[in-house]
Amino acid sequence: VARDAGWSEAEAIELLERALGGGPARRGPRVGIGDDAAVVRAGGAELVWTVDAQVDGVHFDRRWLTLSDLGFRSFQAAASDLAAMGARPIAALSSLILPAGMKARELSAIATGQAEAAAELRCPVVGGNLARGSELSVTTSVLGRAARPLLRSGARAGDEIWLVGAVGLARAGLTLLSRRVPLTTEALRTCVRAWRRPQALIARGSALCGRARAAIDVSDGLAGDLAHVAAASSVRAVLERAPLLRALRPELVRACARLGEDPLELALYGGEDYALIATGPAARRPRFARRIGRVERGKGAQLDTADGTRSPLGGGFDHLR
Amino acid sequence: VARDAGWSEAEAIELLERALGGGPARRGPRVGIGDDAAVVRAGGAELVWTVDAQVDGVHFDRRWLTLSDLGFRSFQAAASDLAAMGARPIAALSSLILPAGMKARELSAIATGQAEAAAELRCPVVGGNLARGSELSVTTSVLGRAARPLLRSGARAGDEIWLVGAVGLARAGLTLLSRRVPLTTEALRTCVRAWRRPQALIARGSALCGRARAAIDVSDGLAGDLAHVAAASSVRAVLERAPLLRALRPELVRACARLGEDPLELALYGGEDYALIATGPAARRPRFARRIGRVERGKGAQLDTADGTRSPLGGGFDHLR
Repeated sequence: VARDAGWSEAEAIELLERALGGGPARRGPRVGIGDDAAVVRAGGAELVWTVDAQVDGVHFDRRWLTLSDLGFRSFQAAASDLAAMGARPIAALSSLILPAGMKARELSAIATGQAEAAAELRCPVVGGNLARGSELSVTTSVLGRAARPLLRSGARAGDEIWLVGAVGLARAGLTLLSRRVPLTTEALRTCVRAWRRPQALIARGSALCGRARAAIDVSDGLAGDLAHVAAASSVRAVLERAPLLRALRPELVRACARLGEDPLELALYGGEDYALIATGPAARRPRFARRIGRVERGKGAQLDTADGTRSPLGGGFDHLR
Repeated sequence: VARDAGWSEAEAIELLERALGGGPARRGPRVGIGDDAAVVRAGGAELVWTVDAQVDGVHFDRRWLTLSDLGFRSFQAAASDLAAMGARPIAALSSLILPAGMKARELSAIATGQAEAAAELRCPVVGGNLARGSELSVTTSVLGRAARPLLRSGARAGDEIWLVGAVGLARAGLTLLSRRVPLTTEALRTCVRAWRRPQALIARGSALCGRARAAIDVSDGLAGDLAHVAAASSVRAVLERAPLLRALRPELVRACARLGEDPLELALYGGEDYALIATGPAARRPRFARRIGRVERGKGAQLDTADGTRSPLGGGFDHLR
């Protein structure tokens, strides 16, 4: 990270780890900067704690969602980090940066969306912060608990790769909106809803504890997030094309037919669905999880096809590019 | 809050409380939106939890501090909310919004300042988030513990008002910088240091537990923050001019002489010192606290002078104006 410009998110995280890692003595077991959420011991409890920011023009485009959608999805996106650790949320803080022209009813709309997410997640917003700025952003910190938090680093050769929830729908929805495709069918509306109103998979994440060895949420895209698991676990993650195609939602296939896009491409590189990927032994796979690949010795993430070709999977969305 | 523009921070908080307060059932005792920090029970522990954002051009001007100062002061400002509750920090999360042109060494400088604050506060940064945006901001969430958190709402008629730490220095320092006054004396440098490198008064805040009945940190100015205590406690807070003047630091008086400013004005309306104000019975005042006034039946905050005149104290800095 000696370069003075054009650094990636991974390089920035490495840099921050170096600057911040040499701090005071650690209190109990914890997970470093770089997993979905931090693990902190307080009293007798194992707390799982995350923060996520959604910035106007970067993470969302106000032409394609309401401010209530924004409040809802920013909360769910943050809670999804807890789902990936197998944790259940306890409470949240909301920190808003508000541009000068913002109206009271606009602020109300954001809060209404947050309140809807809070009710669904059973996770009250207990405080926060308001600041003036030129650019609207919603930063949500969520605190939760897990008996034994699931990490990215637990995958082992021999594990299956499991998909929990849907991938690709959110990107299809955003593409439909940005190309102004009329939402004439239920399949198209489902995709748009997946982008505007994602759901953190708290119950299923929690049910993965004791079954999965590693988990992550698909915020940046299946390919990139799987590569994070492979790197953190020092293994190779191999997606298998045929079962992955079978695991895709019919709505995604229909929306992609309308858009002229490849469903597999959106599934691999789309992101923002907040599905979960986990790895674990075949015998422990829960009913709600689909097998989409396997873990091997080696490194990196790749896609296997039935004819034996293997292609490396490029990264997902980099928040800093 | 029916108006569509020009709402104040207090109105925004009220609006958010209304939108977010009707959420799911509360878990254990908690403090609502509006105190310095939220109180959350997890396991057997009473957790005190806050989030604070510092936005470029609003909370700081990059001409007057280094990015390392920014990392340091944003962390201390967030930790100060815990000091005001009598809590000790456990860990922190850092959420950065970074403009596109930001260089790796600039990011490093922010993290170095955060690491310095983390070491002083014995509060490691255990995770965070990076996002792209057009405007630099540093949002810090700090989690801590307190056996019995100090609230804003505990003040009673008959209490003394106590000042812990210095007020006015930070505003004097910022004024010196913005007027480009040469920092030729130690007093002037002390003021600048107070603004660039504030210290959250964790140990003294913690020592107020069991002695004080209410506390708040002076982020917005003595007058405004005292008014918050008065409102939350349904009492009148009366500052007394003579003891308040005696409690002012000689460095403030010297800097004000150089600036042609009134030290009392900066002390009352300056903010950003992260001193603490507390109220409690005279017999329980700790040595490190100075008596600067009294709590009476009634409402509002006012300043008493020796000749018997009483002037109402206007608000402090409103983050949304």
